[in-house]
Amino acid sequence: MSTVSPLAPASFPDLPAVEGVELHAFAANLRYSGRPDLFLAVLPEGTTVGGVFTTSACASGPVDWCKQILDAGTARAVVCNAGNANAFTGSAGAASVHAEVEALGVALDVEPDQIFVASTGVIGEPLNDDQLIAALGDLVASPIADWPDAAKAITTTDTFTKGAAASVPGGNIVGIAKGSGMIAPDMATMLGFLFTDVAATSHALQLAVSQATNESFNCITVDSDTSTSDTVLLFSTGAVGKEPIDGPNHPEWAEFSAAVFSVCLDLAHQIVRDGEGATKFIEVQVEGATSDESAAVVARSIADSPLVKTAMAAQDANWGRIVMAVGKAGEPADRDKLAIWIGEEQVTEAGLVHPNYSEERANEWLANNDIVVRVDMGLGDGSASIWTCDLTHGYIEINAGYRS
Amino acid sequence: MSTVSPLAPASFPDLPAVEGVELHAFAANLRYSGRPDLFLAVLPEGTTVGGVFTTSACASGPVDWCKQILDAGTARAVVCNAGNANAFTGSAGAASVHAEVEALGVALDVEPDQIFVASTGVIGEPLNDDQLIAALGDLVASPIADWPDAAKAITTTDTFTKGAAASVPGGNIVGIAKGSGMIAPDMATMLGFLFTDVAATSHALQLAVSQATNESFNCITVDSDTSTSDTVLLFSTGAVGKEPIDGPNHPEWAEFSAAVFSVCLDLAHQIVRDGEGATKFIEVQVEGATSDESAAVVARSIADSPLVKTAMAAQDANWGRIVMAVGKAGEPADRDKLAIWIGEEQVTEAGLVHPNYSEERANEWLANNDIVVRVDMGLGDGSASIWTCDLTHGYIEINAGYRS
Repeated sequence: MSTVSPLAPASFPDLPAVEGVELHAFAANLRYSGRPDLFLAVLPEGTTVGGVFTTSACASGPVDWCKQILDAGTARAVVCNAGNANAFTGSAGAASVHAEVEALGVALDVEPDQIFVASTGVIGEPLNDDQLIAALGDLVASPIADWPDAAKAITTTDTFTKGAAASVPGGNIVGIAKGSGMIAPDMATMLGFLFTDVAATSHALQLAVSQATNESFNCITVDSDTSTSDTVLLFSTGAVGKEPIDGPNHPEWAEFSAAVFSVCLDLAHQIVRDGEGATKFIEVQVEGATSDESAAVVARSIADSPLVKTAMAAQDANWGRIVMAVGKAGEPADRDKLAIWIGEEQVTEAGLVHPNYSEERANEWLANNDIVVRVDMGLGDGSASIWTCDLTHGYIEINAGYRS
Repeated sequence: MSTVSPLAPASFPDLPAVEGVELHAFAANLRYSGRPDLFLAVLPEGTTVGGVFTTSACASGPVDWCKQILDAGTARAVVCNAGNANAFTGSAGAASVHAEVEALGVALDVEPDQIFVASTGVIGEPLNDDQLIAALGDLVASPIADWPDAAKAITTTDTFTKGAAASVPGGNIVGIAKGSGMIAPDMATMLGFLFTDVAATSHALQLAVSQATNESFNCITVDSDTSTSDTVLLFSTGAVGKEPIDGPNHPEWAEFSAAVFSVCLDLAHQIVRDGEGATKFIEVQVEGATSDESAAVVARSIADSPLVKTAMAAQDANWGRIVMAVGKAGEPADRDKLAIWIGEEQVTEAGLVHPNYSEERANEWLANNDIVVRVDMGLGDGSASIWTCDLTHGYIEINAGYRS
């Protein structure tokens, strides 16, 4: 791992166990050395699952496979390798996935179509099947791993491992995630694996993870690029609870879905905090838009603007670039009703600079690691938040050398 | 000016005179010193005009003014200041434009609403009207300038001045332009002023400049950001030609409109070659799409991708990032029909790497200053080209320090 992001949490959180989940992590040296690069969670019989995937038209072989087996709603394992995305590898890629689940099915004595697969790393290079399949035996035989090892095994250019948890009466929801580049509209380039011991039907898990993703992972952007491999899966071992949560009418739904959302949001923020080269964590809040959707488009236009992101990196309150980004969004906007804040400093009012605006005070807000940019469109009730990071030399450094 | 872009033409072209156009350039020290920062072209009675402007919802005061007076189709002058965009300056911004055209109208003895105005530079700072208006007298009184001086006077962060010309029987079309950052979808952050002595109606000029802009300035992208001030104006002094060109049915239309397009395309390419921090000029060609529009969306998705642009900067044939950018475009795509070329090296075929692909040869193509990336979607007849540049440390350097 490279130098840890200055925005990283102080330490990996202390995550509770999830009853029934058996973790493994193994250093197979597939691309990386000296660190685990294979992750496996073995799940008990009766485990249910929901999931969401990249919207890319060029989705990876593992994504195709997961989509195909998701309908059954049950799972016995999830496996992930880091370093090679097995994406854009044609029929060889699909064959690799099949070979992997066949071999793992034998080793675990479960049906291959009960095994979810994810791969992350370089696109376009065929997997070395022999090496991977040989390593799967070692992975299964490896001692039980803890959450930090599991979280580490799925990372690529991440500078810190990411985990989060929430509790509901009687049970827990624990998630691990990876991602720091190719983070974009409609799911970051990321993997997220969430596990709960609270009994829930696959239908309820699907609803909870879809809703949570829309308001968390789909609201972050590092570089506006979307990966071929984005995957979020939520598994329930069903160990806790008499009556499985089956949807919004269940008495525990509200608490459960809120807990799933809080884990997703925490992980999503950690991914932004690990944005390649990031030195600032930026929340863009847009309100007063004609609709929530319109607010989200404007917020994303600001959050994706390289000129806004470089100004933030420089701690320069160049708010004209925020105006520019509002203007280019293509959404209803009235220049003369726009109000903009940097931190708590009001910058503009009625289409020009606010009479009390102090650039010195605005720059003080920008000196913080965590920055809020707020825009009031002055048109309606629509609002949205998008989270992003600044654009620095570090991003160029990392991405001009990733494969070397 | 900073160090000249490595992609700059060897020298400013030798541009012909345009009968009737009187150029002025003056160093008013409004923001820059030691260089002209005010540009004026005085135009003879009977001059006709067509123009296109930014689609930003937060357009500048000068853009609002030009749109308002364009309908009349006639012009007697165009004036431009560099260093302050007079954008997002509210009613003060509109008042500045009015004061400017009133003063210049008196000095030139023409109606104020015959004077087109452009401003480029920092957004959100009110113009210093007194200083500007005092300088306008000096500008009018200054000796006749040549094209290089005129082109220099409209630049901001440009590292070289931009001019182009084309000839048609009996007359010329000459253009100057500025722009190197905030270059994006639907007109680059740029100014372009084109002049011809070929007689043409305002209707014909409008048609010619709109068509030419759609296929040139609207097909370039440096950083996906769109400015508040984009303006392209085409003036005809009417000095040459008996029967003014009045539209597509005129016998000289084809030659004339092609000449306008060639000047626009030349200037548009020069703007990309001056992209902030650019070290590579990249043409993204997409063919085989379901429509031309779809091809343009895919080409722009590739051209705007920070991951593609950093790979190009590193001369690294990381073609997985091109696949990613095709996938995220949201247009019809079939992973298994995609074919990709870097230069003349075919990278992929039928959804995976081409059997004869050589990364060494692909990297050799990327060692050139001018790079072609070609994508065949394998679906239909739609095609489009978008021009862009790479993303380097230079971009960060320039944009994290622009105002200081």
